[in-house]
Amino acid sequence: MRGEVLPRLERLGLYLYAADHGVTAEGISLYPKEVTRQMVANFEAGGAAVNVLARAHDVVVNVVDAGVGEGTKNFAREAAMSEAECAAQIEAGREDARQAIRKFDMVGVGEMGIGNTTSAAALLAALCGRSGAEVAGRGTGLDASGVKHKADVIDAALELHQLQGKSAFEVLRSVGGFEIARMSGMLMEAGKLRLPVMLDGFITGSAALVAMKMEPQAREVMFFSHRSAERGHGAMLEELDGDPILELGMRLGEGSGAVLGMHMVRCAMKMYSEMASFEDAQVSRSE
Amino acid sequence: MRGEVLPRLERLGLYLYAADHGVTAEGISLYPKEVTRQMVANFEAGGAAVNVLARAHDVVVNVVDAGVGEGTKNFAREAAMSEAECAAQIEAGREDARQAIRKFDMVGVGEMGIGNTTSAAALLAALCGRSGAEVAGRGTGLDASGVKHKADVIDAALELHQLQGKSAFEVLRSVGGFEIARMSGMLMEAGKLRLPVMLDGFITGSAALVAMKMEPQAREVMFFSHRSAERGHGAMLEELDGDPILELGMRLGEGSGAVLGMHMVRCAMKMYSEMASFEDAQVSRSE
Repeated sequence: MRGEVLPRLERLGLYLYAADHGVTAEGISLYPKEVTRQMVANFEAGGAAVNVLARAHDVVVNVVDAGVGEGTKNFAREAAMSEAECAAQIEAGREDARQAIRKFDMVGVGEMGIGNTTSAAALLAALCGRSGAEVAGRGTGLDASGVKHKADVIDAALELHQLQGKSAFEVLRSVGGFEIARMSGMLMEAGKLRLPVMLDGFITGSAALVAMKMEPQAREVMFFSHRSAERGHGAMLEELDGDPILELGMRLGEGSGAVLGMHMVRCAMKMYSEMASFEDAQVSRSE
Repeated sequence: MRGEVLPRLERLGLYLYAADHGVTAEGISLYPKEVTRQMVANFEAGGAAVNVLARAHDVVVNVVDAGVGEGTKNFAREAAMSEAECAAQIEAGREDARQAIRKFDMVGVGEMGIGNTTSAAALLAALCGRSGAEVAGRGTGLDASGVKHKADVIDAALELHQLQGKSAFEVLRSVGGFEIARMSGMLMEAGKLRLPVMLDGFITGSAALVAMKMEPQAREVMFFSHRSAERGHGAMLEELDGDPILELGMRLGEGSGAVLGMHMVRCAMKMYSEMASFEDAQVSRSE
């Protein structure tokens, strides 16, 4: 990926993208939209789970406000973004990657946004021809009837936007989110720059799907940190042909899985650079 | 386990038990017995995989020579240990636990010993009524015919020693290893002292089975770091009712999985002690 035999893998950064989602008006989350802003403040104060993990693993957290507060339009009624809004997010994400490669050897991507599992599930459904029931999961704690309602909202939105055969960009602007669009731009540029990226879970995976469909080389720099407990993540990993490092049944988001995943790759890299060879250690070969 | 609300989990130690096995005379390993001593020297010099991982995670490595060099008798022909030898190993392991609780908040257990997957597999078969074919795996790189031979050696040994209905101690001394006996003593005493122990893979699991059968409270302090690629480890974890933290397809031994497992538990503990509560962070509750 980097064209180096023993690539340096010490400077790790997490880009934590946050935005709000108009589709929360459909009652698809247990939490009010304000929680996005509150959690961003918590990330900045260092009090969230991902901050604890980042400190424990020497990962620098960069919180990116991609549209907290106003957020996207409600995609159950109209396109989430205008073409110009969506293109601007992608370009901002590309710039994130250009900045990142100057500071970090590998970056993780995480997110926070009340309502964004619904957007991610709609992207998976639209891009890969799956139904709402196949892609809708519990998100931040929905019960079975909440999941059913979420699936219905997704199916109705797919019907409304008529996305069959449309471009990934058009799908993204119709049912995506600001943070998802910006992450997809980041991933596309990382592919160009050969910057290794560790993806977190289901929502970052939807950005990865968009990026891969728009610029296939983006896939070449992706690592998959974990298989989350969110229904649909397994299907998403299949579509991405991604083999996750960890299976911990986590469903938190925030980039928590990405931090652990980067740490595991760093450990693997340390083994290459620090271990004695059998020759050095004078260990006999197999008989 | 410790009777504390926020137990301290900072001082981590790995006990790395090594010993030789007479059953290597049956050609059940690709590597000569001398490799055990060579790898012990490598552990002490800090050049092995487990040393790299231990340094990366602030884990103190304690290498324990439980019988490198002479080793046990060949259990394909006679009992691996005398009663006195086996009892002395168990007592030495108990003393390890008494020392460990003064220095560490949690300990990992790992091992090294050419031939010891055969001993561990024989213990699993004898203690849980399974056949050689169910428990014999590739160890350090056997091919299919090597695994078949290993299974045959185990089946023949079970026939020779007639272990049905015998005590776990008798099974241990018949087909176990010095390091396995010492680990089982360590685990039994850890159970008494309420010292949390992170087990590594298949061989440490066989010591855990022995310990649990001799003193059931030993099970209460056990954590299971990973499900290894060694055939039989899945069955062993079932017998132990153990839910492994990681599934990385590793098959190295040395306590490499135990180091990663301890790190994961330490991360989880840090979340309890360092995270802001929703109240502290002024995050709205679910609606």
